[in-house]
Amino acid sequence: MTALFYIVPAAAIVSLLFAWLFFRQMMKESEGTATMKEIARYVREGAMAYLRQQYKVVTVVFVILALFFAVLAYGFGVQNPWVPFAFLTGGFFSGLAGFIGMKTATFASARTANAVSRSLNSGLKIAFRSGAVMGLTVVGLGLLDISIWWIILNIFIDNPDASQKLVVVTTTMLTFGMGASTQALFARVGGGIYTKAADVGADIVGKVEQDIPEDDPRNPATIADNVGDNVGDVAGMGADLYESYCGSILATMALGASAFFGDYAMQTKAILAPMLIAAVGVVLSIAGIYAVRTKNGAGLQQLLKSLSTGTNLSAVLIAVITFGIFRLLGFGNWWQLSLSVLSGLLAGVIIGKVTEYYTSHSYRPTQKLAESAETGSATVIIGGVGLGMISTAIPVVTIAIAILLSYSFATGFSFSPDLLGQGLYGISIAAVGMLSTLGITLATDAYGPIADNAGGNAQMSELDPMVRQRTDVLDALGNTTAATGKGFAIGSAALTALALLASYIEEIKIGFGHMAEKGGELAVHYAELARAGIPQIVEHYNITLMNPVVLAGVFIGSMMAFLFCGLTMNAVGRAASKMVVEVRRQFREIAGILEGKKRPDYTNCVRISTKAAQHEMIFPSVLAIIVPVATGIILGPAGVIGVLAGGLGAGFVLAIFLANSGGAWDNAKKYVEEGHLGGKNSECHKATIVGDTVGDPFKDTSGPSLNILIKLMSMVSIVMAGLTVMLHC
Amino acid sequence: MTALFYIVPAAAIVSLLFAWLFFRQMMKESEGTATMKEIARYVREGAMAYLRQQYKVVTVVFVILALFFAVLAYGFGVQNPWVPFAFLTGGFFSGLAGFIGMKTATFASARTANAVSRSLNSGLKIAFRSGAVMGLTVVGLGLLDISIWWIILNIFIDNPDASQKLVVVTTTMLTFGMGASTQALFARVGGGIYTKAADVGADIVGKVEQDIPEDDPRNPATIADNVGDNVGDVAGMGADLYESYCGSILATMALGASAFFGDYAMQTKAILAPMLIAAVGVVLSIAGIYAVRTKNGAGLQQLLKSLSTGTNLSAVLIAVITFGIFRLLGFGNWWQLSLSVLSGLLAGVIIGKVTEYYTSHSYRPTQKLAESAETGSATVIIGGVGLGMISTAIPVVTIAIAILLSYSFATGFSFSPDLLGQGLYGISIAAVGMLSTLGITLATDAYGPIADNAGGNAQMSELDPMVRQRTDVLDALGNTTAATGKGFAIGSAALTALALLASYIEEIKIGFGHMAEKGGELAVHYAELARAGIPQIVEHYNITLMNPVVLAGVFIGSMMAFLFCGLTMNAVGRAASKMVVEVRRQFREIAGILEGKKRPDYTNCVRISTKAAQHEMIFPSVLAIIVPVATGIILGPAGVIGVLAGGLGAGFVLAIFLANSGGAWDNAKKYVEEGHLGGKNSECHKATIVGDTVGDPFKDTSGPSLNILIKLMSMVSIVMAGLTVMLHC
Repeated sequence: MTALFYIVPAAAIVSLLFAWLFFRQMMKESEGTATMKEIARYVREGAMAYLRQQYKVVTVVFVILALFFAVLAYGFGVQNPWVPFAFLTGGFFSGLAGFIGMKTATFASARTANAVSRSLNSGLKIAFRSGAVMGLTVVGLGLLDISIWWIILNIFIDNPDASQKLVVVTTTMLTFGMGASTQALFARVGGGIYTKAADVGADIVGKVEQDIPEDDPRNPATIADNVGDNVGDVAGMGADLYESYCGSILATMALGASAFFGDYAMQTKAILAPMLIAAVGVVLSIAGIYAVRTKNGAGLQQLLKSLSTGTNLSAVLIAVITFGIFRLLGFGNWWQLSLSVLSGLLAGVIIGKVTEYYTSHSYRPTQKLAESAETGSATVIIGGVGLGMISTAIPVVTIAIAILLSYSFATGFSFSPDLLGQGLYGISIAAVGMLSTLGITLATDAYGPIADNAGGNAQMSELDPMVRQRTDVLDALGNTTAATGKGFAIGSAALTALALLASYIEEIKIGFGHMAEKGGELAVHYAELARAGIPQIVEHYNITLMNPVVLAGVFIGSMMAFLFCGLTMNAVGRAASKMVVEVRRQFREIAGILEGKKRPDYTNCVRISTKAAQHEMIFPSVLAIIVPVATGIILGPAGVIGVLAGGLGAGFVLAIFLANSGGAWDNAKKYVEEGHLGGKNSECHKATIVGDTVGDPFKDTSGPSLNILIKLMSMVSIVMAGLTVMLHC
Repeated sequence: MTALFYIVPAAAIVSLLFAWLFFRQMMKESEGTATMKEIARYVREGAMAYLRQQYKVVTVVFVILALFFAVLAYGFGVQNPWVPFAFLTGGFFSGLAGFIGMKTATFASARTANAVSRSLNSGLKIAFRSGAVMGLTVVGLGLLDISIWWIILNIFIDNPDASQKLVVVTTTMLTFGMGASTQALFARVGGGIYTKAADVGADIVGKVEQDIPEDDPRNPATIADNVGDNVGDVAGMGADLYESYCGSILATMALGASAFFGDYAMQTKAILAPMLIAAVGVVLSIAGIYAVRTKNGAGLQQLLKSLSTGTNLSAVLIAVITFGIFRLLGFGNWWQLSLSVLSGLLAGVIIGKVTEYYTSHSYRPTQKLAESAETGSATVIIGGVGLGMISTAIPVVTIAIAILLSYSFATGFSFSPDLLGQGLYGISIAAVGMLSTLGITLATDAYGPIADNAGGNAQMSELDPMVRQRTDVLDALGNTTAATGKGFAIGSAALTALALLASYIEEIKIGFGHMAEKGGELAVHYAELARAGIPQIVEHYNITLMNPVVLAGVFIGSMMAFLFCGLTMNAVGRAASKMVVEVRRQFREIAGILEGKKRPDYTNCVRISTKAAQHEMIFPSVLAIIVPVATGIILGPAGVIGVLAGGLGAGFVLAIFLANSGGAWDNAKKYVEEGHLGGKNSECHKATIVGDTVGDPFKDTSGPSLNILIKLMSMVSIVMAGLTVMLHC
């Protein structure tokens, strides 16, 4: 049975090999003219410079936290001694995934621009394969880290009770999830602030005030804007999804170990299942990537079809193979558990489709939004906020149904507290299913920014406008195909966060174990709680919705989602204002920029974004770590669960609202630019540009950071559970 | 002991008498010139016409719901037979309070304008006393309705168990709270859509496109705008606070009856306490209103001081007298319970101050927001959203602390489930304390729109600009003094909603009582549950945060807050667009309007707002009723509690965010208009106008409706608990 485990590291290595292969293939292509190379180099250097700065700050935070965990582990004995190390590797691998993805993207943009001038198809191939490098790196590194720790901890953790050992091993592994989440939050927030400061600043002065097009080389903030796409949309997204991917697998493993506590064989199966589904997903992703191929001279429809075929094929196959995996592992309820996974996958598809409906300008909502711009920027803002809020309804109801179904399938439609563990395992494994084909869905997501950057490169190198048009087509294509992937990402975040709530209770029990080991009068009582089920712990701390401590926590958790968004949004506003001032200054002071006679000072804008992002990312990110810790210390486990549930409820809905408002504003602008309602440079167009600019931090900074925030708060609580128990036992 | 009760109806009658007195005093004043009278008549007729239309629609909804309750009560026996009638009177009195307040306001505006032309002080007196008419009407009608039902139900409800009888009486009375909430939601949503459609429409064409000032008689939407202030800010607010006031008292009475179940004497005391605090609050409010008096020729500072003296005096006195009331009633923990009330009052004051800090342009946040308008409307929108989200932090933490303190004081700092009822009673009585001086705090709130309308009247009647300046001063004064009242309203809404969660559980128990009466195999079991404590019901339905049904509910509840806001926001957007089209049409087609040679067609704009409000208010309001009912039917009590907790967490924070963003945008505009950053008609001013326009539905439609939504969902659930139990027992 356990021999099956070796499929996991094997899949990890295969994944990384293919990533390497695609990277080599891409590098063989020509980067085009000298100007193209120069601009690509500018962007690459800017991006690398930023990432170095960011990693410096993050390293300091990691060292402090690791030391803190070491004190808890070695000083107070309320923490597993492996935690500091697991935490560090999670952060390291998450950062590495983002770094490799970004490095690839910055090499690929000029090459894509160059290839696109030959044909749309060649461009698609380079951009998509480069996106696949990131997709496969993320899943490869994720599975590698999981495999390594699984092997190490199984060897070194010493526990006479084999069943208990599995619980300790899997919950310890969750700490590397916290490392990944911490790094991901910094990457998303920092990258998000960087990219939107540059984007908003460039748009306000360039498009609105000076009427020059996007990515125009005369705009001093252009390079910063393109660097931003890489550090935010590529490196940030890479770290983000690394965190989601590992988080869902680790949470499921931990739940598997606890749900079947006492039955070693079942535990092993339940732990292996998520790893195996993920490993098979890697193989299917690679197959899917190869399925994306078109004949030379293929039209847009064929390209779209080809991309969809790749992602859909992988998703359908993983659904089918899941049945086989559970059957092979010998689960009695193999087909029911597979139905749990299936309901998760379906929910992801529905969320993706609804997102597309509300944000694509092929449908009425965004078209109506564009029409509301005819009465000015105020009505387009009100309309976009309204649209985004309304668009949360179906996704939330879908996820609620998916929660109930994936739980019910796993328990045979029983809501008895005795089967709680199995039910939560069903929810969690559904999230794993949704993310298992991340290798390919991330490729469809990551190639968008690459195409976008290729367009920027083409514009700045003053290539034939046809090249820019083609890269725009590729970018738009990416937005459509990325919908399913985004649906999976959003849905799985909610399900994983839910599973982490249960893992928190497990960690509380381990905390009681530590307390029992210390001896004392109550040692027997603590030992009992350490062996108790989730319902007993829930009763012990009165984690019901009638407990005022829980309710106070729900308020604080809901507030955290808003506070965090407000802080990141204001950070973008402040940084963008600085950028505007600088760009205006350059236009005013450096003669000949607007006439194209003199190059603007790109470096200064890059410096402003870098500094602002670095400076502004610290407070909101540290807050996300401190609040759950402080809640644990002051209010105890009941307060923590309240904070997590409140944060999850409000944060999840807020994230969808922000993403969809932003997306709809973006596409309403594009709709007008395509010639509707007066077309480019009409009053209506100006109003949609205001909408798009407001939407920038909504959809690319605050919104995506929220998904990480929710999980990071859970992860922090889990890691700090030992201390919380010590203070509230 | 029970003789003390008669203080309550006496206070109600005194309150209504003083309201009548102030109304007569106001009516004696002169309405000014013929033009002033004519304009006042236009506004009054428009407002009355709208209210008639609104009440027609609401009546239909009430009849349907009352019939539905009658079927449940008389057909299925899962509802108390008094419920349909109690429900109807709640709606009737709530509507009446709004109607009287609005009638008074529309009579007062021209009189205030006329008085202001004599002196600031005379204007303040008329406006403030007219506001007091509404304040005293709301509390008078509220206490009257409570007294009447208390007397009737005590006589007619037949229950051999005296203690059980009190539980049934108080929970039945909650249904009249549901009537009040339903009517309040329609009033707030309908009025909010009306006023903001007119306001936004008038501003976009008038201020932004044609550069004519606010309330200019040449603007066809001016009358509609002024009508809107009355139906939204006066009638809507009156119904809203009637609902809050009664809701807090009723919830506390119900909790008092259940917390001390089995001890008839203690129950009676606990039921009397909130009524007595409210009755004393009426007397203090009247005293406070008389304390607001200044010498003729008083300056702004003196007026401000005088207003603050009135409200502060009442608040301090109620805090002191509360100790006496609990002592007099013979509560063993009289001073601890009084500390619960005190912590609520303090929380209200803090929330008010924080709101003022974030939204007044005397402080940095709003000044900085105005500065961000220098880089255009996009940055001012981003900045306002960020500011609003950040501003939620302190109020939410404050309310969380107030929850824990008011609970802990009431239980002697024990969190044992056995004392849950007493603790929740502490939370609930704190809300009563916050609203007890509503008579005067509502007066400071309601006189703002009266002053505003007086300014509109002055402008349209082309009085000396000095008159308008003075009414603006009065309006601004009102915004400052209203802060404390708003803090109390927001804080008490959260505490009351929390208390209603517990009342829901009580109603579930009564539902089991109905089931037991029907007999059958499980009758004994049901009878047991009907006599159980809150913790047993919580356990029976597994209302813990680990139950997936509860968690699915939390998601849906959080979503409801956003969906509801999105729907109302879009309604405003749509209606405003229609208004813009009509105003543009009039300027284009009716020659001589802009030159002031011809009167525009005001009636058409009034008709557009009336129709839009009436049409658009139905769906979101009905949704607020249907979702908790459907949740109860499908998911049972665990799902309902999840929905209520999620809605409360997300809704409360969202409401603060929307109110503060809107307030800050409004004042950022005023800050620029005062001559900062380029002053009126600068680019910066235009950007702040966009901000203000976006903020209109935030702060006056969606935001204030949320507070009612939260409580209405709880009230609906409480009333429907019988059916829910029948389906999920």
